[in-house]
Amino acid sequence: MRKELITLRNYMSEHHIDACYLPTADFHASEYVGDYFKAREYISGFTGSAGELIVTANKAGLWTDGRYFIQAERELRGSGIELYRSGVEGVPTPEEFLRIELPQQSVLAFDGRLVDGKTGTAFVALVEEKQGSVQADIDFVEEIWHERPQLSRKPAFELELEYCGETRESKCAWLAEEIKKAGCDYHVLSTLDDINWLLNIRGDDVTHVPVMLSYLIMKKEHVVLYAMDEAVAPVRASLEESGIEIRPYDSFYTDLATIPVDATVLLDKKRCNYRIISEIAGEIIDCDNPCILRKAIKNPTELKNIKQAHVKDGVAVTKFICWLKQEIGKSGVVITEATAADKLEEFRREQGILDISFDTISAYNENAAMMHYHASHETAAILKPQGFLLVDSGGHYREGTTDVTRTIVLGDIPQEWKLHYTTVCKSMFGLANAKFLYGCSGLSLDILSRGPLWKLGIDYRCGTGHGVGYLLNIHESPNGFRYKVVPERKDGCLLEEGMVTTDEPGVYIEGSHGIRIENELVCKKGLKNEYGQFMEFEAITYVPIDLDAIDCAYLTDEEIEYINSYHQLVYDKVAPYLSEEEKEWLKTATRNLTR
Amino acid sequence: MRKELITLRNYMSEHHIDACYLPTADFHASEYVGDYFKAREYISGFTGSAGELIVTANKAGLWTDGRYFIQAERELRGSGIELYRSGVEGVPTPEEFLRIELPQQSVLAFDGRLVDGKTGTAFVALVEEKQGSVQADIDFVEEIWHERPQLSRKPAFELELEYCGETRESKCAWLAEEIKKAGCDYHVLSTLDDINWLLNIRGDDVTHVPVMLSYLIMKKEHVVLYAMDEAVAPVRASLEESGIEIRPYDSFYTDLATIPVDATVLLDKKRCNYRIISEIAGEIIDCDNPCILRKAIKNPTELKNIKQAHVKDGVAVTKFICWLKQEIGKSGVVITEATAADKLEEFRREQGILDISFDTISAYNENAAMMHYHASHETAAILKPQGFLLVDSGGHYREGTTDVTRTIVLGDIPQEWKLHYTTVCKSMFGLANAKFLYGCSGLSLDILSRGPLWKLGIDYRCGTGHGVGYLLNIHESPNGFRYKVVPERKDGCLLEEGMVTTDEPGVYIEGSHGIRIENELVCKKGLKNEYGQFMEFEAITYVPIDLDAIDCAYLTDEEIEYINSYHQLVYDKVAPYLSEEEKEWLKTATRNLTR
Repeated sequence: MRKELITLRNYMSEHHIDACYLPTADFHASEYVGDYFKAREYISGFTGSAGELIVTANKAGLWTDGRYFIQAERELRGSGIELYRSGVEGVPTPEEFLRIELPQQSVLAFDGRLVDGKTGTAFVALVEEKQGSVQADIDFVEEIWHERPQLSRKPAFELELEYCGETRESKCAWLAEEIKKAGCDYHVLSTLDDINWLLNIRGDDVTHVPVMLSYLIMKKEHVVLYAMDEAVAPVRASLEESGIEIRPYDSFYTDLATIPVDATVLLDKKRCNYRIISEIAGEIIDCDNPCILRKAIKNPTELKNIKQAHVKDGVAVTKFICWLKQEIGKSGVVITEATAADKLEEFRREQGILDISFDTISAYNENAAMMHYHASHETAAILKPQGFLLVDSGGHYREGTTDVTRTIVLGDIPQEWKLHYTTVCKSMFGLANAKFLYGCSGLSLDILSRGPLWKLGIDYRCGTGHGVGYLLNIHESPNGFRYKVVPERKDGCLLEEGMVTTDEPGVYIEGSHGIRIENELVCKKGLKNEYGQFMEFEAITYVPIDLDAIDCAYLTDEEIEYINSYHQLVYDKVAPYLSEEEKEWLKTATRNLTR
Repeated sequence: MRKELITLRNYMSEHHIDACYLPTADFHASEYVGDYFKAREYISGFTGSAGELIVTANKAGLWTDGRYFIQAERELRGSGIELYRSGVEGVPTPEEFLRIELPQQSVLAFDGRLVDGKTGTAFVALVEEKQGSVQADIDFVEEIWHERPQLSRKPAFELELEYCGETRESKCAWLAEEIKKAGCDYHVLSTLDDINWLLNIRGDDVTHVPVMLSYLIMKKEHVVLYAMDEAVAPVRASLEESGIEIRPYDSFYTDLATIPVDATVLLDKKRCNYRIISEIAGEIIDCDNPCILRKAIKNPTELKNIKQAHVKDGVAVTKFICWLKQEIGKSGVVITEATAADKLEEFRREQGILDISFDTISAYNENAAMMHYHASHETAAILKPQGFLLVDSGGHYREGTTDVTRTIVLGDIPQEWKLHYTTVCKSMFGLANAKFLYGCSGLSLDILSRGPLWKLGIDYRCGTGHGVGYLLNIHESPNGFRYKVVPERKDGCLLEEGMVTTDEPGVYIEGSHGIRIENELVCKKGLKNEYGQFMEFEAITYVPIDLDAIDCAYLTDEEIEYINSYHQLVYDKVAPYLSEEEKEWLKTATRNLTR
């Protein structure tokens, strides 16, 4: 049994706590969290990016989703913690688990700043039913995690107009108008990407997400930003010049409690923590945070930049694939999943990234069946000149954030893998080439990608794609592709001109291989006629797709044409930045497919 | 100006009414209505199946949807009534119209039994804002329509167990359980198909819908049916034997008003009229009427029967097409849209229909661009040996209800029509051959049908398909195919095994031609594996698709295979019931397509 689990249980017993709930979260409902917040990983040993831990005196459970089933099973082995596969038939949710396991009059502890409003409210109700009590302002992790890193406070920086395309004054004026339209006096924002987007600042406080830890309270036009001194220092003068008041990060909850009882507060309860909701005395008008949709609709400056970022990123990834295909199998050359990822990061650094946009997934053959596998240098597999290497990676550039997956053929592959690979191409391009009337959400289009795989009796058990932030979150709502409504994903909005969404179908065969091919798509207006406004996508990822695994027998003529024209685009965008040798290689890699 | 409009205005002026609202409805939220209820048609002259009329002292407007724009424009010409195209940008809704046109302190009149709850409530609120008043219990039509037909009361009949597959006792026991589960004492049903389904009876009180006019109140297990004596007579003994109490149709609203204030009533407010909602004093628990979903999931007996109905129907329609293709262009033979429809009805009568399931649409060339065109004998076009005849028709058999559309080639057609026709086939089969994981609604699949047409920049401006009742409504919720959520259509449920839905994409080019091809699909379980339960469709319409308009150049090999295997199925099902000559013709009509 993990010693961290034992320590926690000892603490619980001393403090008369019957159950602890620990999600993977920070105070800002971020998807990825800074090191300070990695308590769930510290206690459980499970390193995936999503998971919830519940510990009672004699049981411990970790919940995670389909992306992580295989990885969690391996990482939890011998930990004393049982894996609960979220979404699988018959598996109880954390709430159902607590309903069963928690005796009458129990004490349940969680940090209300880490728990979303809905979950916090549900837990409080559940415990009340059992005549128990909740301790929601307890940071029990602080007590047992002695080497806990400090809360990050790295220097923020300004994102100039040439990158963001709209001044913070203009954005704040628009937001003040939205608050007014909603009939509210106040607006409280705690989501870091919204705050950083609104103020045209960026930071470095969350792993691979360039944002500054902060809260924001707007009272009519007046904006108060809560941030740590060391972090905000480089942008303080500029922000103050724009009329933004800056107060200490620590004083946010205290200030929040001073909002008068008769005030109305626009608050997106789905996107903030339980503590925020509890502290507000005024009337909460719960609706979508207005920044969400506006941020997702990239402006023309952002779009121009994003395409430029993708050219740089395409150059890096193309150089990487060229290097890998040439090096693999050379005698004396040892490449592992991890050193390959390092090499790719090196190529991206040459292109000027601020950071990679998430931990690179570099997964060889059966490892790639784990959708979000991460290879450490210690455990990484050695690549051989056979099978597939799946590489899912991206970079943050001043010109935007990228996310691209390619599955690279390292040598011989069985015919079934070609069928799977070719079908994934068919899927990816099926969606990319959609024409649709305005009024569709991703829900109506998802089957264009998933359909060809469903015909083979295969599913990839996750959404087809997600929105991508501009030098912000790699997973950005409210746009996405998915076949059933999953309210908590908040990605079911109508597709609007200027939205950027990934298109990343895959095949994951446990113990054998994994394939994913991912392009980013910009939604654009197409033909407008008597039927309405047609919409379409433009692919903005410029990286060759490995033709060595494509069998044209599985493709229609139309699909072959798509692939050829996509490869022509890739060549035109990327070739100017390559060496002669690389250019030669790319010429072959993007050759025309024929039957 | 229409004299009926003048008469109405005179009546309004005498009774100090400033505006009248008249939807197309009966007391039971039926889609189609009996003759007694055709007041909107009587006053406006517009014969389409959907429309709302508003008359004020100096304005008169008729609202209808895309299916009827062309027809309404023609029928309203010179009537003094303006057409409002529902759903078109910039066109006000009836509510918006009233908000603009109604002066302060106006009197608005409507019959609360004809108006749905949401609309009634909205109108009352709107008029109150203007300090006016509403007369919602006024049947102003009665006063001005002197030759109004009487309320239908045709004899009902019993649907035996071999047809319906479940006794009324079993259905009522299940429903009593549902009411209990919802925490209710009462359940009020006014939708005719639900009542007739629940009690295994049918009638003949609504044009082409074999139902008996009735209401139903359940108090725990006790069922009270409200019906007219003459109608219920043939089934009275049998119903009473099952413990059903029968009371006069007229006493429903009086009885409704006696439900105690402290009772809880399960009522599907979306599916009942304003008057019902107003009369109930008890607490209304507003939720989906439980019969809706259960009725849509056809039981094995019903499914077996439905397929049998489709064989009979397939024989009738095949004989019709064979007859038409052989007769057309023969010298001396005159066939019109209307006589063709008559001939088809004759073939169906030979197969034993109780009635046709809706007014046959028999539309030649440009007439077919009007989606719900109806040809009278006076106005019907004469068919020539060129172009297309679109025929959308169906029958009610004891074994079930059918709905099928074929577009028949009468002679030469331009290449563009072939492109359109072939693409409609591609669309229809694209959806029919879907494989999908359980959890999809029609929303996620719609693009399989609409997608190929969208690629041509064409849309058909309506849903792709609707549920079909069993000897009940031709349009039955809650299943359907549609690309955006339209809450009032109530057709967005998950697709369940046993649901029957139509698949009917089309192309409608105003002034030129119209194409629609429609099969009915049964949803079935397919492969079940580690990814979940896959679902698929079985086509149960057995009528050849005219190969004379198909150009294989627009099809993939897979699509050609689909069409060939479908035609093999049609031949196998239908040929045994044809004459030698017809069989010979069908052999050719279902020949294998090759490139």
